[in-house]
Amino acid sequence: MSTPQPTRDDKFTFGLWTVGWPARDPFGDATRPDLDPVESVHRLAELGAYGVTFHDDDLIPFGSDDAARENHIKRFRAALEETGLVVPMVTTNLFTHPVFKEGALTANDRGVRRYAMRKVMRNMDLAAELGAQTYVLWGGREGSEVDSAKDLKAALDRYREGIDTLAQYSIDRGYGLRLALEPKPNEPRGDIFLPTIGHALGFISSLEHADMVGLNPEVGHEQMAGLNYTHGIAQALWQGKLFHLDLNGQKGPRYDQDFVFGHGDLLSAFATVDLLENGFPSGGPRYEGPRHFDYKPLRTEEIRGVWDSAAANMRSYLLLKERALAFRADPEVQEALAEAGVPESAQPTLAEGETYEDLLRDRSAFEDFDAVAAGNRRIGAVRLSQLALEHLLGAR
Amino acid sequence: MSTPQPTRDDKFTFGLWTVGWPARDPFGDATRPDLDPVESVHRLAELGAYGVTFHDDDLIPFGSDDAARENHIKRFRAALEETGLVVPMVTTNLFTHPVFKEGALTANDRGVRRYAMRKVMRNMDLAAELGAQTYVLWGGREGSEVDSAKDLKAALDRYREGIDTLAQYSIDRGYGLRLALEPKPNEPRGDIFLPTIGHALGFISSLEHADMVGLNPEVGHEQMAGLNYTHGIAQALWQGKLFHLDLNGQKGPRYDQDFVFGHGDLLSAFATVDLLENGFPSGGPRYEGPRHFDYKPLRTEEIRGVWDSAAANMRSYLLLKERALAFRADPEVQEALAEAGVPESAQPTLAEGETYEDLLRDRSAFEDFDAVAAGNRRIGAVRLSQLALEHLLGAR
Amino acid sequence: MSTPQPTRDDKFTFGLWTVGWPARDPFGDATRPDLDPVESVHRLAELGAYGVTFHDDDLIPFGSDDAARENHIKRFRAALEETGLVVPMVTTNLFTHPVFKEGALTANDRGVRRYAMRKVMRNMDLAAELGAQTYVLWGGREGSEVDSAKDLKAALDRYREGIDTLAQYSIDRGYGLRLALEPKPNEPRGDIFLPTIGHALGFISSLEHADMVGLNPEVGHEQMAGLNYTHGIAQALWQGKLFHLDLNGQKGPRYDQDFVFGHGDLLSAFATVDLLENGFPSGGPRYEGPRHFDYKPLRTEEIRGVWDSAAANMRSYLLLKERALAFRADPEVQEALAEAGVPESAQPTLAEGETYEDLLRDRSAFEDFDAVAAGNRRIGAVRLSQLALEHLLGAR
Amino acid sequence: MSTPQPTRDDKFTFGLWTVGWPARDPFGDATRPDLDPVESVHRLAELGAYGVTFHDDDLIPFGSDDAARENHIKRFRAALEETGLVVPMVTTNLFTHPVFKEGALTANDRGVRRYAMRKVMRNMDLAAELGAQTYVLWGGREGSEVDSAKDLKAALDRYREGIDTLAQYSIDRGYGLRLALEPKPNEPRGDIFLPTIGHALGFISSLEHADMVGLNPEVGHEQMAGLNYTHGIAQALWQGKLFHLDLNGQKGPRYDQDFVFGHGDLLSAFATVDLLENGFPSGGPRYEGPRHFDYKPLRTEEIRGVWDSAAANMRSYLLLKERALAFRADPEVQEALAEAGVPESAQPTLAEGETYEDLLRDRSAFEDFDAVAAGNRRIGAVRLSQLALEHLLGAR
Repeated sequence: MSTPQPTRDDKFTFGLWTVGWPARDPFGDATRPDLDPVESVHRLAELGAYGVTFHDDDLIPFGSDDAARENHIKRFRAALEETGLVVPMVTTNLFTHPVFKEGALTANDRGVRRYAMRKVMRNMDLAAELGAQTYVLWGGREGSEVDSAKDLKAALDRYREGIDTLAQYSIDRGYGLRLALEPKPNEPRGDIFLPTIGHALGFISSLEHADMVGLNPEVGHEQMAGLNYTHGIAQALWQGKLFHLDLNGQKGPRYDQDFVFGHGDLLSAFATVDLLENGFPSGGPRYEGPRHFDYKPLRTEEIRGVWDSAAANMRSYLLLKERALAFRADPEVQEALAEAGVPESAQPTLAEGETYEDLLRDRSAFEDFDAVAAGNRRIGAVRLSQLALEHLLGAR
Repeated sequence: MSTPQPTRDDKFTFGLWTVGWPARDPFGDATRPDLDPVESVHRLAELGAYGVTFHDDDLIPFGSDDAARENHIKRFRAALEETGLVVPMVTTNLFTHPVFKEGALTANDRGVRRYAMRKVMRNMDLAAELGAQTYVLWGGREGSEVDSAKDLKAALDRYREGIDTLAQYSIDRGYGLRLALEPKPNEPRGDIFLPTIGHALGFISSLEHADMVGLNPEVGHEQMAGLNYTHGIAQALWQGKLFHLDLNGQKGPRYDQDFVFGHGDLLSAFATVDLLENGFPSGGPRYEGPRHFDYKPLRTEEIRGVWDSAAANMRSYLLLKERALAFRADPEVQEALAEAGVPESAQPTLAEGETYEDLLRDRSAFEDFDAVAAGNRRIGAVRLSQLALEHLLGAR
Repeated sequence: MSTPQPTRDDKFTFGLWTVGWPARDPFGDATRPDLDPVESVHRLAELGAYGVTFHDDDLIPFGSDDAARENHIKRFRAALEETGLVVPMVTTNLFTHPVFKEGALTANDRGVRRYAMRKVMRNMDLAAELGAQTYVLWGGREGSEVDSAKDLKAALDRYREGIDTLAQYSIDRGYGLRLALEPKPNEPRGDIFLPTIGHALGFISSLEHADMVGLNPEVGHEQMAGLNYTHGIAQALWQGKLFHLDLNGQKGPRYDQDFVFGHGDLLSAFATVDLLENGFPSGGPRYEGPRHFDYKPLRTEEIRGVWDSAAANMRSYLLLKERALAFRADPEVQEALAEAGVPESAQPTLAEGETYEDLLRDRSAFEDFDAVAAGNRRIGAVRLSQLALEHLLGAR
Repeated sequence: MSTPQPTRDDKFTFGLWTVGWPARDPFGDATRPDLDPVESVHRLAELGAYGVTFHDDDLIPFGSDDAARENHIKRFRAALEETGLVVPMVTTNLFTHPVFKEGALTANDRGVRRYAMRKVMRNMDLAAELGAQTYVLWGGREGSEVDSAKDLKAALDRYREGIDTLAQYSIDRGYGLRLALEPKPNEPRGDIFLPTIGHALGFISSLEHADMVGLNPEVGHEQMAGLNYTHGIAQALWQGKLFHLDLNGQKGPRYDQDFVFGHGDLLSAFATVDLLENGFPSGGPRYEGPRHFDYKPLRTEEIRGVWDSAAANMRSYLLLKERALAFRADPEVQEALAEAGVPESAQPTLAEGETYEDLLRDRSAFEDFDAVAAGNRRIGAVRLSQLALEHLLGAR
């Protein structure tokens, strides 16, 4: 059986920090040399990627002077031009340098907050220059290990101030950049603010520029809290807030593993691709953005393993896509969905024009409703589950 | 050392289903007989509680006819009058009966959704009659084990329709009841919709009646997702959405344990009481509602253990309150908070009247900022952590 | 593509309590009627199962008098004879009745311990009569929620006394029954004794009859502790202690889900089947016993869903088996295994006859060893991971 | 209220790597300079510690030549002599260098295994010279992310070969060093071999030198698997295998947090100190070794925070000890323990001289046993729980 090959139309993108990760972990030194971003661009292009993304410091080492900075940007631009790769998303490193040890946009120290704001704005300038549409903010250091070391109201006020100011900056400058918050429950901080898709959605609703701010949810981050990633991005989509996403793999609540997409909870990855490629059964908002991989090549791997793993993300996605399309096209699946009442869920609970007063008068809805019979009704969820499994296994 | 005794002013409330739990678990039969709600009211009053709460079926067994229903209500009212206990919150059982096996307000089956709506409305009538201010909705069966068995968009549409209709009902009837959603990540469903405080906050922002709908967050439910409960309710408070809360104990991601408050993650319970009793350091919204215990007496316990455990919730809370007040009053703590920059976090990042253009022109903020020095600054979070611990242990 | 059909040779077995679960959960009443064990035997036989297993109370309701007991056994025996199903394993219910609320073999109350011992011995008699080879002990109530409520040394002493006595009983009676302990970390108790495969292996090593006692590890139980099930059973096999096993599905640390095998962590299920069907790459002990499913049909399902789910377990296993055989037979996989050094791991670290003194004298082992070069060596684990994924997906 | 001060008699020890951690984490650069081990020895002595422990590379940077090595050792010895600190435990770094990326004693690559063995033996020589009694082996890199990348049998064979060879080395050299394995479920590897106390106990039972090999269990490592640390070390003690221990704090299944002891699950820490200081209620083996802290000062902290946190570990322990002694001495606690049947658990299930045949003949044990009455008996576990809490809070 042939494996599908990635093309630009698949819109696969990679962070420079993914393939470029030198594989230093909390208990071990780097096992790989630093990668030149220019090389990464070329190799990813050869593998079939559509674009790359980066933190400021991935491209321009922290502390570079203006000349070095320009040179890094120039070389990178040249590589983009040579390969045709695009840069749909850019982000800021607000977590590596010790200055951010206690937070960035929510640091207790006002000087640090101002510095963080400036660092973001500077990189938004570059993002706009490179044609990015989305600017991601992962607040990896916004949080605490010690509850009393934060004024939680003040921290949220500062977070709101920061995000609203950056949104205003994008508007005023005409950058066309929308902001996407990336939630994570913990690591590197004990408890990170806006720990899940939900918390970020709630926070966004409180912003002045709520319309400009959405999400960049990562598979593993939600799974670190034991949450269903597909359910999470579905809610974000439903609220019009799925601006971007990060695909990878994770094995439940533990350290952030950043495995290749599909190499974690495979059934969940299948459901995710099903949603991305098939949309909701009853229609509605679709995610049309890049399929962005935010993973780390295993620390055991040398450079061949880096490119093998980059390719593996795309192959896994395409295989899951094939199976998800076949799953929805299978008449037996459609019949099982109907039996489980999935299409019926799209019918409003109150009929068109019906009020709750009408419902109160409808004796068939309550007084005469046969709850026992309804409790005995067929659902057939296990049948759907097995159909999905067999499609996933390529057995149907 | 004397233990403080609960009084009505402490506003301690209990669900009838807590002390009344007959201790049937997934692997075992009931170890205790059913409790008469009237007895629970009297015993809780003797122990110092302020009020009780209930699901419709706790008070009026499912399927009771009108005469039986009226009799149950009459006896309950009499007990309230005799004891002076109030009923600040009421909720609906949308999870025990098989009819709700696949969901209630979000069931695929429209008839079940209509039935669920009617069941809620009927109990809202009673809640209003009894003077409740808050109507809780825990969607324990809204969710799935099999991703494809749900149309996630349709399910969220139905959830929104349901909540908005019920909010309208409260408004139109002049009930003064605000709705409070109770999030939970899983159990009894594999993945419950609106799994955390955050997801519910996000969802609420999409409602027509967003102003009438808030949260009833439970300690253990957030901790089942490994999340920081105090952070969660702080965000809810900050968004004006902490309408009610459920205090209990849990030991991290596992089955829902519903231990006595304080008998789970004790440091976290201390932080929660600190927030509830002392508010945010820089002021802002306070939670003034009941301190509601939603716990289960251990299955090992007979009836004396039931009342011991009810008392234990209140004693634990009062002890934590004493220590939290002493913690904030301690000059050494205040000094450590100042050193950690906690008060500084209340200062906006941009000065009054300062724009981001001003910030961009401020060379001290970026070009001349000494990031290395700032990275070396003193935080002293561990000092705060130890001060909190020693206050908690009664050692200061 | 055709799905393989189960046959008796596949040795698939089911607990009567699995298909027979009436679907009562901590928040909900039963959604299905009780199943007659005789019907279960017939239906499972039709579906291709090889045998059934049971707790005493599954077959003979607790409290049955002798006549009723005999009748239940007689009808069951008849069903076995008609269908040809065997009973390779039997176990005891030491968890449902309130008498066991605080423990069974380790209860603080000596009378309860004696009662539990008698209940086990009585059912061992029946197990032997029915030709079982394995007698499972799941100590679901052996544990605590409150640390001080147990003398942990005494509890372990009592556990040892209990298991050794039962082993002696099997020997003396000539029953040929080996005992298999089933570990679980929590639920229904807060912390269960012998919470993992490892703890049970350690405990067994302290027994007088260590040779007669092994394990019955369950997929979901290990995964509730975030542990790798395949690694766990590999260690049990390596120690000669994998006497039996329980296959099902789980989504990480949360309540015990008992999903259909394969409907949880699918990549892990693949690795498990790979080990069971292919053995260790370098040979060694194999598991030859039944493939026993200990799952629960979803509570949403009525009776058709029960039999669908029973069939799904077997189909999933057979599909995984097909793919696992193909995986190991693939020359590219063998090449990748060799590259990753998997066969080399079977070579002892010290050569035959080499002592550590020889090793100390071997300068090439340390003084002249090029650690940097070795640190750069190719592993190719991600390649293996992707090969496994693609075989699993039926894409190779 | 005064806080107890640590003295040498408290036997508090610290790893050089704890206070010396430069606070580099997976997402951030070091926030603190390297500490000179000599300074650490002096500061820890001033704070009241009894001893220090180390990995070879903590004291002698990897790759030091012989002269540098001797100088490092000489300076360290001098510091020990000046301060009177002892070195009760030593261990090897088999995880930082890339050479160990795929394992050390269980690496697929035989050369790496030989190198690892030599590295351990060299440091055992030093450990013996410095008078250590315990040699710890934490196999942080022994494991996998990809199941098929290991032959699990061969890996366990190599682990056994390695440990038995090292035990033989200790015996032959007359070092008096006992080996202590330190389990951990994951991080930095996806799944580490011997993931819990239990798995290590099981493994040890298979060793030739089982008597020389025990455990060094760490609080946080067990809690990363959601397991009860006190239960774990109790089993190890009961099996005579608690050779050493690592105290710290953790907030459940997530990344390895290494908080100060007591700053994680405080009720569990109390139970641990209760066991260490009071032993089992019915007597039996006691842990008499060092109280070793294996924690990391928060990355937010500069050098003062390092020493504050070192002191905090000891203060927390001593406060917990005070409260644990008071708990057991409280007559109300003793009464509650008796009511809960804790002393009764020390009575064997079979009376002295009683056989199971006698038990079978004892109708009072089964036929005439009133299971219903026993199911209703008083346990009072919640009373014990609340008594423990109130003692912990210093409220009794």
